[in-house]
Amino acid sequence: MTSVQKTHTEDRYPTRSSESALLERTDPVVWPGVDNGPASAAELAEHDEKGFHVLTGLLSPAEVQQQWQELQRMTDDPAIRSDERTVVEKGTEEVRSIFDVHRTNRLIADLIRQPRILDRARQILGSDVYVHQSRINYMPGFRGSGFYWHSDFETWHAEDGMPAPRAVSLSIALTDNYPFNGGLMVMPGAQRTFISCAGETPEDNYKSSLKKQEVGVPSEDDISKLAYEHGIEQFTGPAGSALWFDSNTMHGSGNNITPYPRSNIFIVFNSVENTLHEPFAANQPRPEFVASHDFTPLSR
Amino acid sequence: MTSVQKTHTEDRYPTRSSESALLERTDPVVWPGVDNGPASAAELAEHDEKGFHVLTGLLSPAEVQQQWQELQRMTDDPAIRSDERTVVEKGTEEVRSIFDVHRTNRLIADLIRQPRILDRARQILGSDVYVHQSRINYMPGFRGSGFYWHSDFETWHAEDGMPAPRAVSLSIALTDNYPFNGGLMVMPGAQRTFISCAGETPEDNYKSSLKKQEVGVPSEDDISKLAYEHGIEQFTGPAGSALWFDSNTMHGSGNNITPYPRSNIFIVFNSVENTLHEPFAANQPRPEFVASHDFTPLSR
Repeated sequence: MTSVQKTHTEDRYPTRSSESALLERTDPVVWPGVDNGPASAAELAEHDEKGFHVLTGLLSPAEVQQQWQELQRMTDDPAIRSDERTVVEKGTEEVRSIFDVHRTNRLIADLIRQPRILDRARQILGSDVYVHQSRINYMPGFRGSGFYWHSDFETWHAEDGMPAPRAVSLSIALTDNYPFNGGLMVMPGAQRTFISCAGETPEDNYKSSLKKQEVGVPSEDDISKLAYEHGIEQFTGPAGSALWFDSNTMHGSGNNITPYPRSNIFIVFNSVENTLHEPFAANQPRPEFVASHDFTPLSR
Repeated sequence: MTSVQKTHTEDRYPTRSSESALLERTDPVVWPGVDNGPASAAELAEHDEKGFHVLTGLLSPAEVQQQWQELQRMTDDPAIRSDERTVVEKGTEEVRSIFDVHRTNRLIADLIRQPRILDRARQILGSDVYVHQSRINYMPGFRGSGFYWHSDFETWHAEDGMPAPRAVSLSIALTDNYPFNGGLMVMPGAQRTFISCAGETPEDNYKSSLKKQEVGVPSEDDISKLAYEHGIEQFTGPAGSALWFDSNTMHGSGNNITPYPRSNIFIVFNSVENTLHEPFAANQPRPEFVASHDFTPLSR
């Protein structure tokens, strides 16, 4: 087995070993350091306690419409469809995700630099931030297949070399999220527990894991423990609603047999004080479009 | 191709031909004839308009507990597991449904004869009633696979020879139904439209259709039409809650990746004035345990 020289020594979130374990998170969820911004003290307190908070109407109906048309244009573009940064659904060949949109799409590049978004990310992470990953997701009606329970941070740590869970994700709904069309389920409070998952990372794991994750998946026993301790909430609301959630939030989504598709913009902000090392549990880092090494702080 | 001598001439709900069609229902949803019973005028009006109504607390917590223990006992019984009336989940071999429980299980035989249930079925159907089909369903946590959109009556008409949608189903939740653990979705008002489905019924279709339906499935276009006209509601509520729904209600359920299993008792009452003929669109009738030919009226 080959091995990559590691540039770090300490790993406070070991994972992908022979046995799973529940570890207590040693890092904050809301970080001190940035006092001003659009998030109220109550919103930050909720985010700290539950690991997420919801904003209804982050985008206006007109902005949703604009983004939606842009998504339609992109999914129809043969160059984008065949780009390696575009993931298509197994079997149906429908576009499921387009990655790296904060670099390739002017509309989204502008949006994420607006104070209502950028300054809230800074408040939560207590520092300047950059974009670790961005994408637009499209889950079709009738046969959207959902995503099993996981912590994003587990993957970002193991495969991208993100040292600590000092990252926050923003999901902006471009379609109405009903309880029954595959909306994201989250476990409030579970962000304080890191599930160290069993299993070794295969080569080029990202090629399949972006469609269906096979390693870095918590055991049913561990999911049950967290679910019975914390319960489950679901992100629902009209198009334009937004969910801010911690990188270690335990989340998943069911399938979607309704005729109502589900689409969202997904942006991961990481602290500039939490930039990537070598992967903690993989032989080589994932490609740039899923784990950016451009750590330049976002600014207007 | 062999052909069975039909005992009837008129088919007001033709289906399984070469093309699909939306037909207007010519029969009532709530039938006149039985004036007294536990259902209020408002409940009956709601049932008539939407095709279903919900009763919270039809079973007490103690009754739920008793039924749940009985289900556990049955799924552990090797004789029941290997009975042809028991359906196991593809792949996992977990028990998914146990049929014919109104004949094989004393607890359920008693329950369905109680006035709170039997007399409500009579009110809705406007006559004496018998049980067309009964089962206990169990959808496990983590990998419950749900059921695509369909009308039960379409199958009962095509494969069992039920002349008209003068039947009503009762689903009693034995577990809490959340919005996110595979709870039944229903389209209010869609019971007034009969979707005539394309496709011929294969031999012994029931053996696979009880797990995953392949014929008698409405097209995506037709489901979309009904969903955009009527919308979708979901049956949620604590264990012991009950859903009464018309035999032609368009319904389905998503998968269940939560740790919370979902279980229910499912009873189909048919009017004694709507007993079975030869199948309207199949070469032979399905077996007794899915389509009873014992038309004896239920009584206390």
